[in-house]
Amino acid sequence: MKTESISLVDLRTVCIRALKKAGCDDANADAISGTVCAAERDHCHSHGIFRMPGYVKSFASGKANPKAKPSWDKIAPGVIRGDGDNGFAPLSLDLMSGDLGALAKAQGVACLALTNMHHFAALWPEMELMTEQGLVAMTMTSAFPIVPPPGGSKPLFGTNPFAFGWPRENGEAVIFDMATAAKAHGEILIAAREGKELPPGTIIDKNGDPSTNPADVQGGAILAFGGAKGALISMMVELMAGALMGEPFSFETAKKVEPDGLANRGGQLIIAIDPGRFGDASGWASHAEVLFAEMVKQEGVRMPSARRYEARRMTETTGHVEVAADLLSQVKAAG
Amino acid sequence: MKTESISLVDLRTVCIRALKKAGCDDANADAISGTVCAAERDHCHSHGIFRMPGYVKSFASGKANPKAKPSWDKIAPGVIRGDGDNGFAPLSLDLMSGDLGALAKAQGVACLALTNMHHFAALWPEMELMTEQGLVAMTMTSAFPIVPPPGGSKPLFGTNPFAFGWPRENGEAVIFDMATAAKAHGEILIAAREGKELPPGTIIDKNGDPSTNPADVQGGAILAFGGAKGALISMMVELMAGALMGEPFSFETAKKVEPDGLANRGGQLIIAIDPGRFGDASGWASHAEVLFAEMVKQEGVRMPSARRYEARRMTETTGHVEVAADLLSQVKAAG
Repeated sequence: MKTESISLVDLRTVCIRALKKAGCDDANADAISGTVCAAERDHCHSHGIFRMPGYVKSFASGKANPKAKPSWDKIAPGVIRGDGDNGFAPLSLDLMSGDLGALAKAQGVACLALTNMHHFAALWPEMELMTEQGLVAMTMTSAFPIVPPPGGSKPLFGTNPFAFGWPRENGEAVIFDMATAAKAHGEILIAAREGKELPPGTIIDKNGDPSTNPADVQGGAILAFGGAKGALISMMVELMAGALMGEPFSFETAKKVEPDGLANRGGQLIIAIDPGRFGDASGWASHAEVLFAEMVKQEGVRMPSARRYEARRMTETTGHVEVAADLLSQVKAAG
Repeated sequence: MKTESISLVDLRTVCIRALKKAGCDDANADAISGTVCAAERDHCHSHGIFRMPGYVKSFASGKANPKAKPSWDKIAPGVIRGDGDNGFAPLSLDLMSGDLGALAKAQGVACLALTNMHHFAALWPEMELMTEQGLVAMTMTSAFPIVPPPGGSKPLFGTNPFAFGWPRENGEAVIFDMATAAKAHGEILIAAREGKELPPGTIIDKNGDPSTNPADVQGGAILAFGGAKGALISMMVELMAGALMGEPFSFETAKKVEPDGLANRGGQLIIAIDPGRFGDASGWASHAEVLFAEMVKQEGVRMPSARRYEARRMTETTGHVEVAADLLSQVKAAG
């Protein structure tokens, strides 16, 4: 794949131009381009500029609102319900994470039920929004149906990512962000683009047979990670990001909207916890470091997010990222 | 394996006698025997009478307090911290679940941080304590170190179960309760007892090599389910049931206490959520049924817990359970 070097500042400008051309106001263009550029900064290419054509297409088709004005209310002492105004998640998350954090600090635990929005990004950015406030958090959101339920072979659940964040004093929170599918759909699309094979056990084809050809996911299904257990966690995500807050399940959105391979309208749950309110306010942070130290003592163990933080430090040193040249041309042309 | 039929009522009496002989007061004997008999009622043999010798042994060695008097306090508006007084979890859970439920209903979301106790049972009983109150809940607790961290090959994490419960109007909540290890330690012990082989990918032996002989878990390790993703969920459990509430990690308890294959002293987190407080009070329950109906439409899909509820109905019809004859003799003798 041919790549091109571009400064992060210029990449941001290129993205903002394309988003504005697609109808975004300043706030939405700023939030979406921020998420895209943060992904490229951290070398998470599957959520970087690769997603830009999708964002633009979603605005062009009228599926998503480029001028979304998110709103939010505390509907119970520990619950904030947000309305994304049919826009993309990043602006809602930027706007609501402060109030969610403050509520978690006041209550010990608080939830954000974010509704009426499209999620097309990784989940670690919102985990960072919480860990930067010194909070522990978990989040989950559903997607379009591609994963069979436990024991089944036809798509029903989304790739349904689940993420967890634990704040650290060095600022580099321990965050994992995983599709509950054996592989994220974005990664399978990237593999198809690049002509790579998938590991066995990742997908089944349209006949329900195992395949390693990423193109076979079309009409087939992505298996849940870890068999039935992973599929049950995926079910939990459907319930917590769907029925809990009156938002559609993955398969319901797909029935209403022409499937376009892009983000579905749906819900997201964030549970935020203040570790200072659980009875060990002075000890929890250093205690966690004891576990992390034991983990990395073992050969072959890397902390989750470590690769991302390394990439981030590298980008911060050079100021530049390497992005796919054809995608960059496409986004530049869109602007 | 030779089994013996016994009425659930008689089994309860047999267990209570053995527990009292081991030093339990009425409250502790009642709670522990209740959990043991509920497991046998539901045909969850790995958490039934099979555990009785372990409970008795833990009291005999002085490791656990047979007369524990649990106490609890609301230490933040959404957080209850419980102290199990070094006893086993069931009494604490019986005593505290009502206040936790009431707090979740008042706040929308609430946590129970249960500390200073030993957990030697399944987690679905406490999920039922929450779903019976109409609440959604998740829970996690750590155990003695037997699972390597992601990428590693030496035990560090516990089998670290994670459970989730979703209440249903028919009373048979959708509950899953999974070890984040590829297999629960109890099931591996049962396999060893019964001379059965394990599926490949379940354990590694003391040299880090794959094995299907359950006896090799001694000195070896149980792999996390689903590779690195499962291991990360296990890490989350260590943090949430450990550092968050000032309780030891699995490996820390093992350093302090002579490993005896029994329950470790540690913490447990329950997050309880009132689905009536998230903005779709009248719709969430029936909406969830739409998902469940789609799941069971697919060939091969069974709802989580379905097998348990079938067993329960069968037990309720006959009043009797089949238990291992040698274990029953042993528990009778202990009483």
